[in-house]
Amino acid sequence: MRSFFRVVPTDEARARIAECTCVATESVPVAKALGRVVAEGLSAAVDLPHFPRANMDGYAVRAPDTFGASASVPAYLKLTGTVEMGKEAKRAVGKGETMRIATGGMLPPGADAVVMIEYAEELGDASVTDATIEIHRGVAPWENVLRVGEDIAKGAAIFAPGRRLRARDLGALTGVGITRLRVFRRPRVALISTGDEIVAPDVAPRPGQVRNINAYSLLAMASEAGAVVSDFGVIPDRRDLIQRALARALARHDAVLISGGSSVGAKDITLDVIASFPRSEVIFHGISVAPGKPTILARALGKVVLGLPGHPMSALVIFELFGAPLLRVLGGEDPAGVFTPQRTVRARLSQNVASQTGREDYVRVTLSEHAGQRSAAPLPGKSGAIFNLVKADGLVRIPASAEGLEAGSEVEVILL
Amino acid sequence: MRSFFRVVPTDEARARIAECTCVATESVPVAKALGRVVAEGLSAAVDLPHFPRANMDGYAVRAPDTFGASASVPAYLKLTGTVEMGKEAKRAVGKGETMRIATGGMLPPGADAVVMIEYAEELGDASVTDATIEIHRGVAPWENVLRVGEDIAKGAAIFAPGRRLRARDLGALTGVGITRLRVFRRPRVALISTGDEIVAPDVAPRPGQVRNINAYSLLAMASEAGAVVSDFGVIPDRRDLIQRALARALARHDAVLISGGSSVGAKDITLDVIASFPRSEVIFHGISVAPGKPTILARALGKVVLGLPGHPMSALVIFELFGAPLLRVLGGEDPAGVFTPQRTVRARLSQNVASQTGREDYVRVTLSEHAGQRSAAPLPGKSGAIFNLVKADGLVRIPASAEGLEAGSEVEVILL
Repeated sequence: MRSFFRVVPTDEARARIAECTCVATESVPVAKALGRVVAEGLSAAVDLPHFPRANMDGYAVRAPDTFGASASVPAYLKLTGTVEMGKEAKRAVGKGETMRIATGGMLPPGADAVVMIEYAEELGDASVTDATIEIHRGVAPWENVLRVGEDIAKGAAIFAPGRRLRARDLGALTGVGITRLRVFRRPRVALISTGDEIVAPDVAPRPGQVRNINAYSLLAMASEAGAVVSDFGVIPDRRDLIQRALARALARHDAVLISGGSSVGAKDITLDVIASFPRSEVIFHGISVAPGKPTILARALGKVVLGLPGHPMSALVIFELFGAPLLRVLGGEDPAGVFTPQRTVRARLSQNVASQTGREDYVRVTLSEHAGQRSAAPLPGKSGAIFNLVKADGLVRIPASAEGLEAGSEVEVILL
Repeated sequence: MRSFFRVVPTDEARARIAECTCVATESVPVAKALGRVVAEGLSAAVDLPHFPRANMDGYAVRAPDTFGASASVPAYLKLTGTVEMGKEAKRAVGKGETMRIATGGMLPPGADAVVMIEYAEELGDASVTDATIEIHRGVAPWENVLRVGEDIAKGAAIFAPGRRLRARDLGALTGVGITRLRVFRRPRVALISTGDEIVAPDVAPRPGQVRNINAYSLLAMASEAGAVVSDFGVIPDRRDLIQRALARALARHDAVLISGGSSVGAKDITLDVIASFPRSEVIFHGISVAPGKPTILARALGKVVLGLPGHPMSALVIFELFGAPLLRVLGGEDPAGVFTPQRTVRARLSQNVASQTGREDYVRVTLSEHAGQRSAAPLPGKSGAIFNLVKADGLVRIPASAEGLEAGSEVEVILL
């Protein structure tokens, strides 16, 4: 019995991936920054808001003028005008006075609170000023007002480097007047599919041949992980052809994914080809994980090479667990967060699952809910099958130390 | 006290949104179909695999020849050759015979299982045929083999209309030979920002003015919901200008988002303008939800108009809860799933939260973990503030029937 792999535990694989060097930076407008990774710490250049703003429709008042007011014992204030939206409020609200103000309006000098429209009534002809306003509820100072810098104060740190920007972050950047920012450029990633038995998706396979199932899924997953992807198509399992494709791919990309080559012979070719490049190093030959043990992490010409198992299910699970985090690290994201599954739910396992000690297992499960109890049912099926993964709602991790999990145990399901 | 809104409960708002008519369809290549919504039911045109395939590296055998084999009592088989990858295996494996086979290879006629390489040893010179293979573990029929149609059988339904395609679905489509498919086209959505106090993000606001915080966030969220977005910029609160912008937007889009106009006057203008179009109907004027009560759903010229509250936090929360589902319905997704939050975790509330009965409240929370217990802490802050939402990890829903939630109660947190 031969040992083909130098296999590392999953924690070591994660540590090696976290060490990979990220790409260079570029400047982009905020409008195009969704999903981009912040490359330098940002802080607020201005107070937000930079003037006290009404947070409700109503009446700008001096809060003490309303203290104790109620529906049965109202306060009465003199209406002196209306705050114009988008303009500086220059006319002050004096003692016993009030002005109409709409949400977002600037609080006039003197005023320190807004009485909501629901708790006030205009007596007499509301179209003229000098009407009287009946206040049915007192307000505390600064009630219904957004004070200067209350949203964010000038100088406060906003986003640290390594943060991937979400939709709502763009508004926050806009709010403090940031219109461009420095982000990591998107990592450029090439996909080389190998295998004598693989044909392009649009070719009718003969007996013994299969269509390239992995390519479109891996390209889509890599682009979801923030990369710009190039598809190098299918290369037969010949040293010279793989060598040439890898040389071309390394020249213009930050990382190369090699899909296929999970059979022993194909794997040997991949490793040989990687070793033939200057500045090459095989970081690991395998991960003690199932599915997907024959996963290679290497460097060649200073670039990262990830060799994925050829089985569709294994390839996609490994990409989810290790490949996407690798691309996120290359893309500048804080490595501390990239291995934390982004979506998980808790469920009870519907049946026993066996597992091999010393190996981290990821079991495909479907989820169902019955009487408020969420249940995870392991899916049977072989690693060469893709529909098994299509049907799965998530993965349950069985730690390397466990011999399996018992029916009824509560598990965390990594949603796919 | 005036009542400004015809307010519907959240369930009714969801039902009205679910009724919206989806867009037309188009044909796209599978390589470009990530995130697109399937428009017609798809089934497998072929068996996958279409020949019996080895699922492991090893030896193709007749299973009965190995029955009872173990390390102490091995079975011995005659090696007759190697299955060539990507070729039809024509030479049969006879009784007492075996052939080398790599993962993905076609099982030769006669063979019905694969013995893994780990459980076999080649005796003598492995480079010649007619060597003897010692088998250390018996296999059951079809063990380590993917049978014809075992992944998916010809004719089996794959994806129903209304499914948004994920990365792994693309591989599945490829596997069964589908290279193009009919999907719903992406809904075209225009965003009109209104408000006399709003200036473009790149303009320095004067006292009383604020930058357009909502626009970039809403555009990004709409594109994440599958839409193709156009930004109409900021329109002052003037009937004729809003009317003209809305007319232009309706002419070329499936839906128009109007951001701003949450003050009473601005809201009235928006409603008046909508009513001025032929085939217009205000479906609701408000939702009994906080934040974001002043949300409008309407139709004009047969297109959908969604009026969002002007407060950044309210606008983004409402977009998350109702806007994105609306765009997903327009985009052909099955309405049954669009309101189910895609990412949730359970946590214990760190303090009491008050709520108004009759109104569904969404409280912003931050999450922390301590001694294996996840805790959700409500964030203070006003609806006009954006950073409140930036800091939030999620939302906790307080049902309309509740007066609030007590510290320590277990809640579901909708992750943002």
